[in-house]
Amino acid sequence: MSNAADTNKASPTQPRKLSTVSSWDFETDIAIVGYGGAGACAALEASDADSDVIIFEVASEAGGSTKLSEAEIYMGGSGGTRVQKECGFNDETEDMVKYLMMAGGPQANEAKVRCYSENSVGHFNWLVDKGIPYKNSFHKERAIMCLTDDCLLYTGNEKAWPFVEQAKPCPRGHNIEAEGAAGGPFLMKVLTGHIDTRDNIDVKFETRVVALIADEDNEVHGIVIKMNMKEYTVKARKGVILCAGGFVMNDDMLQKYAPDLLKATEKIGNPGDMGTGILMGMGVGGSAINMHEGFVSLPFYPPADITKGILVNSQGQRFINEDCYHGRVGYHLLQQLGDRVYFILEASDDFEPPMFLCADYAGTGETLEELEAEIDVPAGMLKHTVDFYNEQAAKGQDPLFHKSAEYLQAIKPPYVALDCTPGRGAFFPYFTFGGLDTTINGEVLNVGGTAIRGLYAAGRTTCGLPRTGAGYSSGMSVGDATYFGRRAGVEVAKQAAR
Amino acid sequence: MSNAADTNKASPTQPRKLSTVSSWDFETDIAIVGYGGAGACAALEASDADSDVIIFEVASEAGGSTKLSEAEIYMGGSGGTRVQKECGFNDETEDMVKYLMMAGGPQANEAKVRCYSENSVGHFNWLVDKGIPYKNSFHKERAIMCLTDDCLLYTGNEKAWPFVEQAKPCPRGHNIEAEGAAGGPFLMKVLTGHIDTRDNIDVKFETRVVALIADEDNEVHGIVIKMNMKEYTVKARKGVILCAGGFVMNDDMLQKYAPDLLKATEKIGNPGDMGTGILMGMGVGGSAINMHEGFVSLPFYPPADITKGILVNSQGQRFINEDCYHGRVGYHLLQQLGDRVYFILEASDDFEPPMFLCADYAGTGETLEELEAEIDVPAGMLKHTVDFYNEQAAKGQDPLFHKSAEYLQAIKPPYVALDCTPGRGAFFPYFTFGGLDTTINGEVLNVGGTAIRGLYAAGRTTCGLPRTGAGYSSGMSVGDATYFGRRAGVEVAKQAAR
Repeated sequence: MSNAADTNKASPTQPRKLSTVSSWDFETDIAIVGYGGAGACAALEASDADSDVIIFEVASEAGGSTKLSEAEIYMGGSGGTRVQKECGFNDETEDMVKYLMMAGGPQANEAKVRCYSENSVGHFNWLVDKGIPYKNSFHKERAIMCLTDDCLLYTGNEKAWPFVEQAKPCPRGHNIEAEGAAGGPFLMKVLTGHIDTRDNIDVKFETRVVALIADEDNEVHGIVIKMNMKEYTVKARKGVILCAGGFVMNDDMLQKYAPDLLKATEKIGNPGDMGTGILMGMGVGGSAINMHEGFVSLPFYPPADITKGILVNSQGQRFINEDCYHGRVGYHLLQQLGDRVYFILEASDDFEPPMFLCADYAGTGETLEELEAEIDVPAGMLKHTVDFYNEQAAKGQDPLFHKSAEYLQAIKPPYVALDCTPGRGAFFPYFTFGGLDTTINGEVLNVGGTAIRGLYAAGRTTCGLPRTGAGYSSGMSVGDATYFGRRAGVEVAKQAAR
Repeated sequence: MSNAADTNKASPTQPRKLSTVSSWDFETDIAIVGYGGAGACAALEASDADSDVIIFEVASEAGGSTKLSEAEIYMGGSGGTRVQKECGFNDETEDMVKYLMMAGGPQANEAKVRCYSENSVGHFNWLVDKGIPYKNSFHKERAIMCLTDDCLLYTGNEKAWPFVEQAKPCPRGHNIEAEGAAGGPFLMKVLTGHIDTRDNIDVKFETRVVALIADEDNEVHGIVIKMNMKEYTVKARKGVILCAGGFVMNDDMLQKYAPDLLKATEKIGNPGDMGTGILMGMGVGGSAINMHEGFVSLPFYPPADITKGILVNSQGQRFINEDCYHGRVGYHLLQQLGDRVYFILEASDDFEPPMFLCADYAGTGETLEELEAEIDVPAGMLKHTVDFYNEQAAKGQDPLFHKSAEYLQAIKPPYVALDCTPGRGAFFPYFTFGGLDTTINGEVLNVGGTAIRGLYAAGRTTCGLPRTGAGYSSGMSVGDATYFGRRAGVEVAKQAAR
């Protein structure tokens, strides 16, 4: 054992000083912190470029949050992926760029959007080449995720106002050909299968990365790890790549950086999403940006027909086009003044309650007056909202929020109101978007905008493609993690060994 | 001249290394960066505690943003200030704490709120003792600021829903006894007058602080300054206090950290509000928090009667109680979906347009139908909104947003709509709230939550009392800067000289 225990000062936010390290227990070209989608893809590319890699994972198996997900990936542009083309969609890169720029809001990162849009067909081909099967089929039904083995689906706000007015819509969510919610485990199985065959990739499970090792200029030379209760030093000759996930499991960080997210109820992520990678980056001067933003959702569909209902706030006003992506609905829902939000629907004989929403019935009524009284919306407000909506729907229009005609249909009695108020039973999942500011090649930037030598990051440890809950689409996270994970692997492999 | 020019690497985000400093051009106990309200108060307290101080100011005179403000200060609790008591208000500390906790939203800092609420009567007395005159008078009229020499006024959301339901309202804005908007210059004149008499405070104007000087543990030992085109080193035996303002003048930082604020139009601050102090803190590991938040306002009153009108979004819906503080209105206005916001008023014979709003007339109408058509609100929406509002106002109630009865009055024809859409002429001032995370004694905390030795901060360089635009009250900024500036001065003076 080395001198790694000489000082107990090192922590995620306090790098071990290089000058205190007198010997290395392990040496490699590239040390990767975290074995989820980002870490796996970084390792494969680095290995392809003949670099030696060690992946350190705190859990006892690979996967991270990618494995817990459906592993839908948002891809398109360049005329379309094979699946898009076969399904009859022509997806121009500029349409994808326009959409992702709108989706990123005022904090969109054009360099990342453009790089991703220009190269995601190539990323699709890389995944296929690795053995990920995508069926040439289009899943037409509005869904949170595809529970069949069909591939292509709309996973965001592409067809919804105001996005549809500025960017030609195209389905870009690609679902792996596997039945049920098995995409994440499948993707990770394929990636880890490749990694297991590589002689130049080693994996250390149940290993916690305690701290970075940096010199007095904050250049990163390695990491301190803890295995079997003992600390060891690892020299990373070319660099360290942080792929350690976001911070949704760290309540202190949430309270400090993203307190609004705490209004939601269900953390989405793996237990390792403690923000450790972000903190380690910040500890050597890395800039963390967009830390207040995240995904908050009200997963009210499927069934898609729920979209024909309307969401109202405590004032009985609509506030969103209900054909938006569920995350955009969640984002705007949290901004409503007042203490309640309801979904108002026709309680028809064939009414199917939402699959995932878990909302309580707040009230029912043969008339709107009855329902208003039951759910305590000021008398006359809900009635006007529904009457106006019905009148306009009959004309095939929604002059308030421009919901698509396919979901416009008068809401008739008997009425039912589902309680969608945050904290009152409905399912409100959330995760974080904030992280280290990186270049398109995964270089971690310091507060002054300069790359920190020896330090790279990918996945939710970075602030990547997803920038605001108002514009998130499913598939952006795993897309961002796997694609920019690959780029980071390529970039670090190019560095001279130190 | 020293060796300060040996290396040109130092910058706000890149501290000069102590090991490269071979001699000091200046030495003092405490170096204060920035001579606004925070810096002045810190210097006075440090001087009182027998520490030597040098204040470095990039401008050619003292003042900062405090001088540009009205210098209203938010104070109360402990039964009330002398003025509150004389005006008949009993202000319990717990009511002030409750109000400020609500005002800070989910990111409120209870330690700062409590410390401030418990001690602001003492702060009032300190200011009076220094020679700041406050008249024992209450300015009843709803105002953005007091243009008379009266003292006490409501400057926030104290009387507005939902605040009024949880915290007993009390006016806490204290306006200096000076006619017109002269409070800021007056306050700074008094403070600088004291500083000029102190033998142990030196002031260097037209001096830019280039970088901090820190050792390899990020302990801060001094600063590098630039005067007359030359760089010098300054040793701060007890510590450095950053009082260099916020970052509203730095467009790169706004885009990176607070892009939503860029929807507003008018920067409020002084040219030095470039975020330099925040960046210097971050450069030695300081944690910057709440960077996305700020003040955005629609200053639609005075005259107070404007409050009797209603604000509507593109959908013709109300979205806020119009008796809120103008900053809270601005905050919620920016969240509206759609591309327009209007103020709807009765165009009575004695109609007085807002003093500061500068909004264009978007349309007029003898009927609501006519006005709807003119301002392109979906037919029937504005009509219902106004009819409902009028009907309820006649009963003295606002069941939607609980506007106070004193402003509830039916809006009668002829109608006028003022265009309050951001970017279409109306005045939308803004400034930043984000900054370094500090203790109540001004110690700058690093990302791991530990105080950085030798480094302190106050004023808008820190994330202080004001935490969200949804709950800001006028007087919180100058209150925070002057009070916590004083505490920082006391704290640093206590340190052992190094």
